[in-house]
Amino acid sequence: MQMIHLIEKKRDGEALTEDEIRWFVEGVTSGVLPDYQIAALLMAIYFQGMSAHETTALTLAMATSGHQMDLSDITDYAVDKHSSGGVGDKTTLVVLPMVAALGVKVAKMSGRGLGFSGGTLDKLESIPGFQVALSEAQFKAIAREVGVVVCGQTADLAPADGKLYALRDVTGTVPSIPLIASSIMSKKLASGARGIVLDVKVGSGAFMPTLDRARQLAETMVQIGHGAQRDVIAVLSDMNQPLGCAVGNALEVREALACLSGGGPADLREHCLHIATLMLRLAGRGAAYADADAVRGELEEALSNGRALEKFRQMVAAQGGDVRVVDDPTRIQVAPITAELFCTAREPVYVAEVNALQVAKVALELGAGRLKKGDSIDLGVGVEVVAKVGDCVQPEALLARVYASSEAQLSSALASLEAAYRFSSDPVAPLPLFYGQIDYQSLV
Amino acid sequence: MQMIHLIEKKRDGEALTEDEIRWFVEGVTSGVLPDYQIAALLMAIYFQGMSAHETTALTLAMATSGHQMDLSDITDYAVDKHSSGGVGDKTTLVVLPMVAALGVKVAKMSGRGLGFSGGTLDKLESIPGFQVALSEAQFKAIAREVGVVVCGQTADLAPADGKLYALRDVTGTVPSIPLIASSIMSKKLASGARGIVLDVKVGSGAFMPTLDRARQLAETMVQIGHGAQRDVIAVLSDMNQPLGCAVGNALEVREALACLSGGGPADLREHCLHIATLMLRLAGRGAAYADADAVRGELEEALSNGRALEKFRQMVAAQGGDVRVVDDPTRIQVAPITAELFCTAREPVYVAEVNALQVAKVALELGAGRLKKGDSIDLGVGVEVVAKVGDCVQPEALLARVYASSEAQLSSALASLEAAYRFSSDPVAPLPLFYGQIDYQSLV
Repeated sequence: MQMIHLIEKKRDGEALTEDEIRWFVEGVTSGVLPDYQIAALLMAIYFQGMSAHETTALTLAMATSGHQMDLSDITDYAVDKHSSGGVGDKTTLVVLPMVAALGVKVAKMSGRGLGFSGGTLDKLESIPGFQVALSEAQFKAIAREVGVVVCGQTADLAPADGKLYALRDVTGTVPSIPLIASSIMSKKLASGARGIVLDVKVGSGAFMPTLDRARQLAETMVQIGHGAQRDVIAVLSDMNQPLGCAVGNALEVREALACLSGGGPADLREHCLHIATLMLRLAGRGAAYADADAVRGELEEALSNGRALEKFRQMVAAQGGDVRVVDDPTRIQVAPITAELFCTAREPVYVAEVNALQVAKVALELGAGRLKKGDSIDLGVGVEVVAKVGDCVQPEALLARVYASSEAQLSSALASLEAAYRFSSDPVAPLPLFYGQIDYQSLV
Repeated sequence: MQMIHLIEKKRDGEALTEDEIRWFVEGVTSGVLPDYQIAALLMAIYFQGMSAHETTALTLAMATSGHQMDLSDITDYAVDKHSSGGVGDKTTLVVLPMVAALGVKVAKMSGRGLGFSGGTLDKLESIPGFQVALSEAQFKAIAREVGVVVCGQTADLAPADGKLYALRDVTGTVPSIPLIASSIMSKKLASGARGIVLDVKVGSGAFMPTLDRARQLAETMVQIGHGAQRDVIAVLSDMNQPLGCAVGNALEVREALACLSGGGPADLREHCLHIATLMLRLAGRGAAYADADAVRGELEEALSNGRALEKFRQMVAAQGGDVRVVDDPTRIQVAPITAELFCTAREPVYVAEVNALQVAKVALELGAGRLKKGDSIDLGVGVEVVAKVGDCVQPEALLARVYASSEAQLSSALASLEAAYRFSSDPVAPLPLFYGQIDYQSLV
């Protein structure tokens, strides 16, 4: 096989065979294929796309390109979730303990954030002492004993994806649905999950700005799951405004704890209940958790009776974190310098928009995210979005709060934050949380 | 400036600015831009194309990326020609001495061949002793004293093109009109030519298989020439069957000598007269050579009275070659083993096709060309195409002859050659030599 022929085939709109795709991924993994030929093929894929068959073959080849986690000694049906990334998305921190509280073990590998905010690992590191680098033995032991664990992906998990992603990042080939879908799914498959809930965000603050593109991505991933004999449910969820109120690593952990204690913002709570219900239904595979209402009732109970919070506490303890933060979230350090944004309208007005991308930019400028891999981030900074779409706000009401590490950042942060808001004198409907749900049955 | 932004811009169909293109070419030349980003941009250009403005900017940036030949001490208006490459295309060998015979100095830098046959340099090297590696001083001295010289391009002539071409060759980005046009024209501009005749081949044996693509390429190059203040005339010429009869390095030099002696195949003679006339008209810039018929008459005379052949002899002498070949072309060694292909029809038939690509493959398999840079080639092997499109051939008439270096090659070569021929019982019109001519006036 010759790489130039694969490039020309794809360039001319033909489908690559399974053998060709496997050969390509092996060449990426071993390093024998030069980066310039890989880059050319990636750009050709960007323009010509890939069939469902090709995308599944690519995903499977990447998933098996390195070490594959075997969770069968922990559970006979591991469930996992993945979010395509959003502003203020702390769902994982809430959902995993909820699911574990109902007796379904969750062993999750997660990534660091790139872009406006940190990833789940960064967020967890705002808990003093919390260790995200675990050996496989530690990871499995905590999963087995506590029922919930989150650790960093090792480099030998789908290494082909790691190499391809790094190259896509610098060659303008990130926004390709087959490449995005195969990247996400290869890691999920290699992580050993049998059932996967995909939270595909749509809107200004999401990777997929339109419902159409988000649906394509979701459908592609559900197809891949089917081809790989996994059960996959994808939801399309709103990311036009931030999820919940907190945007920024430590702030988000505080908010997750509020949610796990039965409080927190209503949209975040509802979002987490929905995702957790889907994970449990997958885990039950139509038996124990067939009745969605019953599952949801149990999950609400786990939030109100402290069992979900208790699971979080056990995970923190097992991963070396300071458990005192669980009962006293103010122990999680946030940036010391704050400023508030107030409504300047003279009459009561309705919030028409809290542009998620704009809020994200504020958080990034404050130092909450990273522009490139390896950048250090400031865990304490961020934004608290108090007024959300549909809210009626009075003159001089509090809209949002900025947490900064220096006074110098405040005025530009407030101005940028103000630009995220749009108001209306007419009532505005709140944004829906979800726009749809896709599973394989809905596709065939 | 950041390369990723240029890639994304082009990927999204936007035009790059002159500054961006210059910055890109500088980065290619200096080596600071990684190959994978260059490859990604090239593939994005393949899909999105380039405007005339962009293509001219790219060409000028490449032309000035290294040493630029200044021919003003030889002539105040240097003319050059370029062929997009064809099977049996020995035009340069004939045209240059013809033009020089009429007193217009031609100092040409040429390349080695890639593909089915050698390039002009390879062909000339089948003359014993002929030196194609000349210093700039030698090159200019021969141009000044003899009036005609051909030497190899130095690596510092449009080095950006050298790097980009090498990368295009392995990334499936060769067949892009703006990239082809800028590659050809950058070298012509850097070679110091003021007037350029472009021979763009069309057909099965050409780089551009369709008239439409060939015309696009020709128009793009004429546009570039205008942007670079050069006079450019492009002709679209047939390459559905080989030009002349000989295909293979030594065989082609023999045929060129026949043509320079006033003989040779009619199509080759006519083709060369046409190209030479255009070069002379450019050199005369509307004055001395305004009258095409007069020019043509003088050129025919130069072929019949030996002056063109004499120029060739002087060039061979000046470049260290054995001048005895000029009067006795059989001194140019061809492969010793030959076989003939005869017509197997029982009635007289007309030749409907002599597929140039198929003939080229035979020549390549015999060893006349190279698959990759640096491959050695066998100068003596090749094919002589005796019957051409439109010819009426009798049963058992000779169609073609193979020159091989081993008996083992003969049977497969003859079978392949037979596959190049198609016949018709009805008369077939000969192929036209030219399909059109483009200059800047014809575009505006």
